[in-house]
Amino acid sequence: VSGRPFVTLLTDYGPGTEHVGALHAVIAARAPGAERVDLAHDVPPGDVRWGAILLARLAPLAPPGVHLAVVDPGVGSERRGLAAALRDGRHLVGPDNGLLGPAAAALGAEAAVELTAPEHRLEPVSATFHGRDVFAPAAAHLAGGGALGDLGPAVPPDSIRHPPMPEPRAGEAGIEAMAVGADRFGNVALLAGARELTAARMQPEDRVWVLVAGRRSRAVVGRTFADVPRGGLLVYVDSHGMLSLAVGGGNALKRLGVEPGEVVGVVAA
Amino acid sequence: VSGRPFVTLLTDYGPGTEHVGALHAVIAARAPGAERVDLAHDVPPGDVRWGAILLARLAPLAPPGVHLAVVDPGVGSERRGLAAALRDGRHLVGPDNGLLGPAAAALGAEAAVELTAPEHRLEPVSATFHGRDVFAPAAAHLAGGGALGDLGPAVPPDSIRHPPMPEPRAGEAGIEAMAVGADRFGNVALLAGARELTAARMQPEDRVWVLVAGRRSRAVVGRTFADVPRGGLLVYVDSHGMLSLAVGGGNALKRLGVEPGEVVGVVAA
Amino acid sequence: VSGRPFVTLLTDYGPGTEHVGALHAVIAARAPGAERVDLAHDVPPGDVRWGAILLARLAPLAPPGVHLAVVDPGVGSERRGLAAALRDGRHLVGPDNGLLGPAAAALGAEAAVELTAPEHRLEPVSATFHGRDVFAPAAAHLAGGGALGDLGPAVPPDSIRHPPMPEPRAGEAGIEAMAVGADRFGNVALLAGARELTAARMQPEDRVWVLVAGRRSRAVVGRTFADVPRGGLLVYVDSHGMLSLAVGGGNALKRLGVEPGEVVGVVAA
Repeated sequence: VSGRPFVTLLTDYGPGTEHVGALHAVIAARAPGAERVDLAHDVPPGDVRWGAILLARLAPLAPPGVHLAVVDPGVGSERRGLAAALRDGRHLVGPDNGLLGPAAAALGAEAAVELTAPEHRLEPVSATFHGRDVFAPAAAHLAGGGALGDLGPAVPPDSIRHPPMPEPRAGEAGIEAMAVGADRFGNVALLAGARELTAARMQPEDRVWVLVAGRRSRAVVGRTFADVPRGGLLVYVDSHGMLSLAVGGGNALKRLGVEPGEVVGVVAA
Repeated sequence: VSGRPFVTLLTDYGPGTEHVGALHAVIAARAPGAERVDLAHDVPPGDVRWGAILLARLAPLAPPGVHLAVVDPGVGSERRGLAAALRDGRHLVGPDNGLLGPAAAALGAEAAVELTAPEHRLEPVSATFHGRDVFAPAAAHLAGGGALGDLGPAVPPDSIRHPPMPEPRAGEAGIEAMAVGADRFGNVALLAGARELTAARMQPEDRVWVLVAGRRSRAVVGRTFADVPRGGLLVYVDSHGMLSLAVGGGNALKRLGVEPGEVVGVVAA
Repeated sequence: VSGRPFVTLLTDYGPGTEHVGALHAVIAARAPGAERVDLAHDVPPGDVRWGAILLARLAPLAPPGVHLAVVDPGVGSERRGLAAALRDGRHLVGPDNGLLGPAAAALGAEAAVELTAPEHRLEPVSATFHGRDVFAPAAAHLAGGGALGDLGPAVPPDSIRHPPMPEPRAGEAGIEAMAVGADRFGNVALLAGARELTAARMQPEDRVWVLVAGRRSRAVVGRTFADVPRGGLLVYVDSHGMLSLAVGGGNALKRLGVEPGEVVGVVAA
């Protein structure tokens, strides 16, 4: 068993891109003893909310360490760069644009600083690549055992921003919830869960309609992909507890033409 | 030289996705001393046969270790989850849907168990993400030196399933073989090899027709991409011994419009 | 802090592909103590110049080690395979088709050999996958502390080839420069920099026209993405010093329809 510190990485830089490579290179150079774990790099460009959901979902699965996250459409503008200390020795590093909020809440932020110390940045800091110049060096500093306070002045941990997460509506008339992301298989996650299914009195094997942009599609409530035939539309609670849409052997995102940010309805058939 | 155990990963989860990240996170948390090696994550969704071919091709290149593979369109249905012990201390872990068969045969499966032990799963096991909840914990257990028998009851190693691999036909009339996969460059691999070229009396510099879905395209038999001009269609034996199609400086998959599973003909011109 | 040797990887094999996995597997098997760092794998297929630019940009960020690079459209033809020793103990390994030139110049090549020694290749060497059979074994040899001279006969380090890099033109009439690459966000890099902006007397907040293939688009000179409204076209110097084009919250590559290799104009509005 290794005693090496872990640094996890989550970005919207795209898999296998030079931007991800630059983060790895900087961390490897500045914290050569750390082990780097890629959590996700295919967050849609600039989709802070989906990045925040994935970070809160994945960081707890990883060993305690430094969780670096960069989805940063406002790079170079006024938004702060932050590092936070969490319970059990974990740290979060990234832009304060909502990306860090859900993970900070789930893992318990106990202290935070704004990233301003020049000695832990690659100077001169570029206007467009703070991942390389600000966030990766800060993560490397923490991974190497450096103190949080070295990175800049303290800020209240409860000032860490959260992304907007519109509440679902659910009742006997059905469910309305926002689509917030999709995976490689085209399975679409909604901002709702098992509670909303219960509130709408829906259960496995029920036939329902899924409503997207004024169009309705037949679907079945189920538990797993085998519960619908090839091409059938499934409404289910995914492995993270989110109400989701899938197509058996197919791609619900493409089939329904739903966009993250759209409100989806699920009503009894 | 390191004495760390190796865990290799092969999935259809897509490069840089949260699903791949979850596997890495779980293995890093449960086997922190293990080194993780990504073999491939761009297997087309649910393409068990191509995943099985890649696993059998790549695992022997890697150091002895645990070879975790997940291409699992039937997750949540009846198919078994398996771990197998191979010659020279290697292990295989994944769903028993055909994915493991060719690697188990190539590397010599000596024992196998069905993955049922709750203490080596993330409970409650989800219905849709056994990679995270069942297979990664099992791989971590084995990487940490745990016994195969801890994971569940023994099953006969020769009960490990194989995917369908239709035999090619080859003779003086030419070759018929199934297209089974393509790489990033659009080079298309067929279920045939040098033996079929010989049986069809074809050799480098021969002019041939490639037949796909009733359409024929001029091609040349060759050894490497430089053997055809830019845009020319090449029939060659690839670096794994598979009869393959490529376009010089181009993409044979797109040019021919061939789909994995289609039968392709190669006949004398 | 670890004393493990580093091997970095840069290819056009595509993220998460079996070809990248094969390189990792071979290096892990032949240099088990080495740490592998992916720099980039999404170089467009066969784009040697863009690969060379990324290698020269990323390698200096990484710790001293072996920098393996493979963008090799001429695999199997006459081009040499090379390894070079650089200042501060770094090494370069890859095809001598221009890919290594800029990094060799930036990092200072002091010696070079042609890769011919059979004992450091996977024999029989395939005609189409020298990454696996020639370059990865050479990189592993060097990462394990092996001597450069073991890999083959010395060649003059100044014989390492460079890719064509057409000079920009800049003056009061504006700037003409070649587009050479784009990132995941669709930000397009030109072969020009701050010097050309100065020569054209352009500065932040200036309104300009961007000319691509006879079509002109309004743009603003700025420093970062927040300097244009959503959908606005930005001309800026990127984090590597290259003159670049971006669209606020959008994708300049798609918006302008520009192809790498095309000459782009920037003129006063």
